[in-house]
Order: sequence, then C-alpha cells, then structure tokens
Amino acid sequence: MLDLSFAAAVPALLVLAVLGDSGSGEPLPARIRGVALTDLYAHRLLAELTAIGPRPASSPEAQEAVKWALDTMEAMGLERVHSEPVTVRHWVRGPKERAVLLAGSGARADATGPAAAGPVPPAQDTELRVCALGGSIGTPAGGITAEVVEVRDWESLEKLADSARGKIVFLNRPMPPDRLDTFDAYGAAADQRAWGAMRAAKVGAVAVLVRSMTLSLTRHCHTGVMVYKDEEAPRIPAAALATLDADLLSAVLARQGTARVRLEMGCSEPGTVQTANTMGELTGSEHPEEVVVLGGHIDSWDLGPGAHDDGAGCVQALDALRILKQLGLKPRRTIRAVMFMDEEFGGAGGKAYAHDSARKNEKHVAAVESDRGGFRPLAFTVHGSDPAVERVRSWLPDLGQAGIFTVEKGYGGVDIEPLSESGTVTIGLVPESQRYFDMHHCANDTLDQVNPRELGLGAAAMAILAWKLSEEGL
Amino acid sequence: MLDLSFAAAVPALLVLAVLGDSGSGEPLPARIRGVALTDLYAHRLLAELTAIGPRPASSPEAQEAVKWALDTMEAMGLERVHSEPVTVRHWVRGPKERAVLLAGSGARADATGPAAAGPVPPAQDTELRVCALGGSIGTPAGGITAEVVEVRDWESLEKLADSARGKIVFLNRPMPPDRLDTFDAYGAAADQRAWGAMRAAKVGAVAVLVRSMTLSLTRHCHTGVMVYKDEEAPRIPAAALATLDADLLSAVLARQGTARVRLEMGCSEPGTVQTANTMGELTGSEHPEEVVVLGGHIDSWDLGPGAHDDGAGCVQALDALRILKQLGLKPRRTIRAVMFMDEEFGGAGGKAYAHDSARKNEKHVAAVESDRGGFRPLAFTVHGSDPAVERVRSWLPDLGQAGIFTVEKGYGGVDIEPLSESGTVTIGLVPESQRYFDMHHCANDTLDQVNPRELGLGAAAMAILAWKLSEEGL
Repeated sequence: MLDLSFAAAVPALLVLAVLGDSGSGEPLPARIRGVALTDLYAHRLLAELTAIGPRPASSPEAQEAVKWALDTMEAMGLERVHSEPVTVRHWVRGPKERAVLLAGSGARADATGPAAAGPVPPAQDTELRVCALGGSIGTPAGGITAEVVEVRDWESLEKLADSARGKIVFLNRPMPPDRLDTFDAYGAAADQRAWGAMRAAKVGAVAVLVRSMTLSLTRHCHTGVMVYKDEEAPRIPAAALATLDADLLSAVLARQGTARVRLEMGCSEPGTVQTANTMGELTGSEHPEEVVVLGGHIDSWDLGPGAHDDGAGCVQALDALRILKQLGLKPRRTIRAVMFMDEEFGGAGGKAYAHDSARKNEKHVAAVESDRGGFRPLAFTVHGSDPAVERVRSWLPDLGQAGIFTVEKGYGGVDIEPLSESGTVTIGLVPESQRYFDMHHCANDTLDQVNPRELGLGAAAMAILAWKLSEEGL
Repeated sequence: MLDLSFAAAVPALLVLAVLGDSGSGEPLPARIRGVALTDLYAHRLLAELTAIGPRPASSPEAQEAVKWALDTMEAMGLERVHSEPVTVRHWVRGPKERAVLLAGSGARADATGPAAAGPVPPAQDTELRVCALGGSIGTPAGGITAEVVEVRDWESLEKLADSARGKIVFLNRPMPPDRLDTFDAYGAAADQRAWGAMRAAKVGAVAVLVRSMTLSLTRHCHTGVMVYKDEEAPRIPAAALATLDADLLSAVLARQGTARVRLEMGCSEPGTVQTANTMGELTGSEHPEEVVVLGGHIDSWDLGPGAHDDGAGCVQALDALRILKQLGLKPRRTIRAVMFMDEEFGGAGGKAYAHDSARKNEKHVAAVESDRGGFRPLAFTVHGSDPAVERVRSWLPDLGQAGIFTVEKGYGGVDIEPLSESGTVTIGLVPESQRYFDMHHCANDTLDQVNPRELGLGAAAMAILAWKLSEEGL
C-alpha cells in the first residue's frame, strides 16, 4: 500500500494541466475527454499489460499481471494500493489438442438436391482447427474416435435419443448475424458452449464439437467456459471448432451422410490456485468510506493476450483515475479502480471482492464495469432502481462529451454483480459491438485490434461518470 | 439504360425473401438491417470496386469504375441505369516526388532548453516522405532547394514577412486530438492544406510542406486538394509530409535553428477529361418524377483504392436499393443511387448532376450522401428547414434499428450540395469517426480497413431513410 502524492511526483505536469484547465474555459467533461484523447495513456498501459501475454487466472502470467497492476497503481500515485486474495480453479489446456476428420469416413449418402453439389468426401485425413473449451476434461490417451452427428437446437439433440450414443455431437447453430448488438447474437448461441457437453452426454454422446462463437468465418478457435452437472450426466470432452472448419464439417456431413473424427485433448484441472484482486483509489475527501468502483477483469483466456477482453476495461479504469488526478480533482467520495481476477472461469474475484472483510466498513455507492471491449462507447446500462437509472440518465449532457448517447436499465457486469446483491447499483459501459466477436476468446484479441482513441473515449466516459457519482452520489 | 425485373432475374431469392418476411413478423426497419447484416453485400461490392485500384476522376481507373457501376446496377436489375457526362480537371502526380533533408544543412543554433535535447543534426541526407497535394504545380527540373521555416498559424506566417522570401514554408499545425468528432479536428487544420501555398507565396515562399491531415503518427502521406488564387499570389509547389517526418523536421529545426530541404515533384495538369456520373433506380410507382437520391462519390485519391473515401458510400447506396428490392418493396417515389464523379477535385459531378437537362422534369424530395467512411452509423445531419429536420427526427425509432441515435441540423454532403441550391433537402450519414483520418486520402484506405458489419449498418440506415422519404415525402 502506498500513498504517493501525484502532485509531488510530477508537479510540472500538474501545473500544466491546471493552467490548461483555467485557460481553456471548457466544461469539465470536455476537459476529461481532452486529456484522454491527447495522452492516449490507456493504450500505453494496454501495451504493457498485453505484453505479459495471455493471463488465465491460474497462470504465472496472471500473477505477473497482479504485480504489474500494483506497480502501475503505485507509480500513478493512487492511494491504498493493495491486493486481496482470490482462490481460482486451476485448469490447464495441456500440450495435445487436435481433431482429425478421417479419410473416406462414413458411407456416402445417396445424396440428391443441394447436398450433391457439396465438397467431395475427404480423400485424406483433414485437420480441423479445435481448442478445448474452458473446464473441459481431456480425452483418453489416443483420443476419441467416433462418428459425428450435427444438431443446431436442443430439440433435435433430444430427438436423437439413442442414435447419439457413442457419437461426437456437433453443435453448429451459428450466432445470428442480423442483430444490431452482437451480444444479442452471442446470447442466442452461447448456450451450446455452456451446456452442450452436459446435454449431449445425457443422450450418450462421447464428446462435443461446438461451433466457435463468432460472426466471422475464420481459422480462429474461440474458447470460453463450459459447465458440467455431475448429477445429470457424465463428463465428456468439449471443444470449439473454427467456423471455417464447422462449415467444412457440416458440408461433408451433408454430402456423405456421415463423418468420423478423432479428437485428442490433453486438458486437465489439477486443483486450485491462490491469486488476487488488485485495487487503488482516490480516497474521498468528505466521505472516504463511500466508494465508487471502476473495474475490469485482469485475467484473460489463454489463447490470446486479452486486449479487448478485458485488458481494455482494466486500463480504462486506471486511466479514468489518472485523468481526474491530472486535472487536480479531489473527489468527495472514494473512487477506486479494481482489477478483478477470474471473470472468465467462474467470477471468483468479483465474489471475493464483495465479501472481503475490507468491505465491512465501506458503503458502495455504485460499481461501474467495462467488459465489452475497448470500442467507441455508446451507452451505460444501469442495474438499479428506476430513480437510479433516471439520475444517471440526467447526466447524459456530461456523458455525451465522451460519446455516450443513452442510459438504459440493464446489466452491470459479471465482476460487480455480487455487489448488487447487497444493494449496490451496478453500471455497465456499452461500446460499439460490431467487431467484438472477431476477437473474443481467441488468439486474435491483440493490442493492434484496439484503437487508442476509441479506448480513450471509454476511459473518459468512466471518468465523467465516476466524478458525477462521487460528487453527487446516487 | 436497362430495365430488368429483379423478380424475373432471381425469382427464388425473391420468393424466399417474401416468405422470410411474412414469417419473421419483424417490423420493416429490422428486416432491412437483417438483410444488410446477413448478406454483407455492400462489402462484396466494395471488394470489387477497390480491386480496380485508386480512382482519381481523370484516370483510366475512374473510367473502369464507371463501367463497373453501370454493369453492377444492370446486374442488380435497377431501372433507368445510365451515365451523365462530367468534365473534370486532369491533374497527374508524375513519376518524381521526393524531399531530402540535406546533411549538415544550416548553421547550428545556439540551442538551449528543451531543443538542446532534440536529435543531432543529420550527418547524411535524410529522405522525408512527401506527396504532392492535389492540384499542385511541379518543381523545376532538379527540384527546389531552400531553407525551411516552420509556422503553425497564419499570424506567424504573416509576421515572417520578407524573412520567408526564397524559403520553403513548413505548415505544421497538428489536428487537435481532443475533439470527439475527428472531422472537427480536420476542420481545425485542413486550412493549411487548402490555402498554405497561396498564403506562403504572398510572403515570397518558393514551396510549402504541409503536415499530413491525420491524428496518427505514421509513415503515410495524406494528400488532398489545394487551391491557388492567381490574382493574389504566384503558384508554388505544395506537398504533404508524413506526420512522423513532420515531427522529425520540426525537431531538427528546434535543434539546429535551420534546415535545408530539396523538393522535387513531377506533377502537372495537362487539361481536362470527360467522364461521367452513373445512376440507377427503383422508379416510383406513384410519383416516378419525385426523386430521393442516395449517393457517394466513385472517384478517390490516387494513393490508395479509396475503400472508406468513398467506395463505402457508393456501395452503401447500391446495397440500400438491393435490400429494398430483395424485400419486394416498390417505392411510391423514385429512389435513385448516384455514383458521383470528382468529389475530390472540385465536385464537378455534383454540379453536373444538379444541372443536367435530365433534372428538368424531376422534383428532388431529398438527397442523402455517405462520405464520412464506412464505420458504424450514428446520426444523420439534415441541411433543410426546421420542419424537415423534425420530420426526419420523427423517424428515429425506425432509423435506430440501424444504429442511428440522433438527427441534427447540419451538412448534407459535397456532391449533393448543388441540389440544395434549388431547395432540395440534403442529408449526410454520420458514422463513428475515430479511425477515419488514419485512412483518409492515403495509401492506407484499403478494403481490410472496412468492417463488413459496420459498412452494412450504414447501408441499412440509408435504406430505411430512403424508404421513409419515398413513402412519406418530406
């Protein structure tokens, strides 16, 4: 824990900021945006954070990210910089992960109609790009070889009944492309990833292949967490298939009637690991015990460095505090940046934060999370009472300076959800979503996909909202 | 001119669309968005158009684009597909374009303070990345070699008075990064590009180097049109300098006090070329003579294939008509897609369209232009009476299905501006702008910079607006 005065650390910068301040005559929200877009500090932080690499919660890289967060917050001169313990599941992907569509597999169907125009049956083994879903068990040594049966909805799966026994179920319902908000499209398909293995096991399947959750046709495999229910079905391996390969497999099935795949995965879950949430703050001058949280999650999936998910949210929270500090502002209530650990694998960090003994003497005014990518901000969604929503909406003229057009009743965020159980209003930043699922949970979620200005606008939006919350309450 | 019935050409597609239509029960604007985002047809058209390459209005590639537009509109089954003549300036860049910062040039200034920490004076000649501004004269054979003097505002330039005589004036005022709308930042710097040569020549300068109009620090040179006023000053060559090189040159000047540059440009303007606007339409069933224009400009700068500027606007206009057609809609008033020629070099196409004899028996209800990049649409700006603005604003619930949040009084577009002189309401599509000036007028304006969904949403926004205008008038 460290309490460096920012003014002492970089007086010239502060003086300049204050001079620029009085000189410009612009209202505070515009000045906040100006600092964010001029310095592009959030993107510089993101370059550091993503350089650590992929950061699954139980990995050494996540531990390195914890240290980076503490060092960064101390260097920024935040107050009460510290970590709080979080215990997370230790799942590891393992070295071996492979699916092969076997040559000449299956009997050629008596294909007529459109299927007859499909690809010819594979004359040789064909690699299918797969990755284990998070939490999956591995396959036995030598893998699982079985016929594949494709379904796109649960009703079809259940109708398979005994005919699915011993097979690999291929869940191939695409995210619907027609939605304005791509999170709606995600919501219309991600049930396959979460529940596919459990529901396929109930009809006797030996493994599942799930179409990757993305709107793009790409080579990338998009992972994500999946869930077993041991009381309902035995555990079977679950893998995500790149969308290009899902289309190939589907075409081969249409052409041949059947296909055989060998799936090998070396993933396992040896136990748990202790890691940490990290946080630092601008302590409130009048109500230090009243807290506004700005947060993101510092863990990422293991396939990429998590630039959008959710390095972006972490550095936006940090930048928001930096901007307020640089403008010489002292908040009435405490504004705290929290880097939550383990959003991706069960949300242990969010729960640990909400229930940590350190919360006992604190009252949380509101918690704001950015976990939908570092794109141009458009909206805030408020999980709270109607008057709370109205109050945040009344700040739209200020929030609009960072591009926010609308405030709606809605979801806050996975990491801050546990705070809402004790009555804290939670608020989610909603950026433009068209590109998000090109990067989500795959190797493509890299720094170069994040535009520094779009990222900075999100930081500005969070800073403006945090300032309103700290000065006016909720 | 061709009048193919779309239904006759692709009956199966139309039947499917109509079935899908009655089946979905969604309101029309959502169905329009659904077609745009499912087919991503605009992006497929943009791939074809950008494959032609850079398309300056007087180039063979622009002629090829005219042919592409006619062929495409005919293949789409648009009605009254035809071209109308446009005469454009024939400016050519020429083979030789080079600026060299000369070794050990200038006397070392007695530098103290921050400048003393700058780069050492160049020990060898250093290439500076430049491109001629559009319309510039070339240099004499062997180039122009002169001392460089840097200014950031007109007042400083005028104060130079005789001390600028014989020098190269370096206009280095950056686009201010703090604005939410990057077009505001462009507006605060682009005067240097337009008027720099004329104003520097008035104080005796022999050439100008202008900092590229972009918010990024890059190697790309961003061109754009510049203007001479022969009655005020002699013509001198004008080049854009990559921002990285502008910073280098500025640092060298700060360090050394002076710098010498040799500038060579082979550009010239041999005359004029006749080319064309192209257009096709869905002819109105009740008021065929009442026209709603959807437009973009098909010419681009010569350094890149103009994917955002303005291939995007062209293919969005075409896609908007395709979507309405695919949904089996017959507009009451005519909806016409116009590919304007020569927005970049004086707007000859927009003027020719407004004044063509074919307009005599037509009444233009409104003209809508997309010329701010193929990004996620946010707004429409209406150049018209207050009641016209209010009427378009009343359609926000429909326009919102394609992401439009707001309708404001504002600018329509360069190509449709001449129509406003005879009272036509002009309307501009306003997409998200953070990334636009990374690509604008430079080699970086390529297909891969355009997200198919963001582009498609713009097409959907234009289709919804066109349908409202055609059915309800204005």
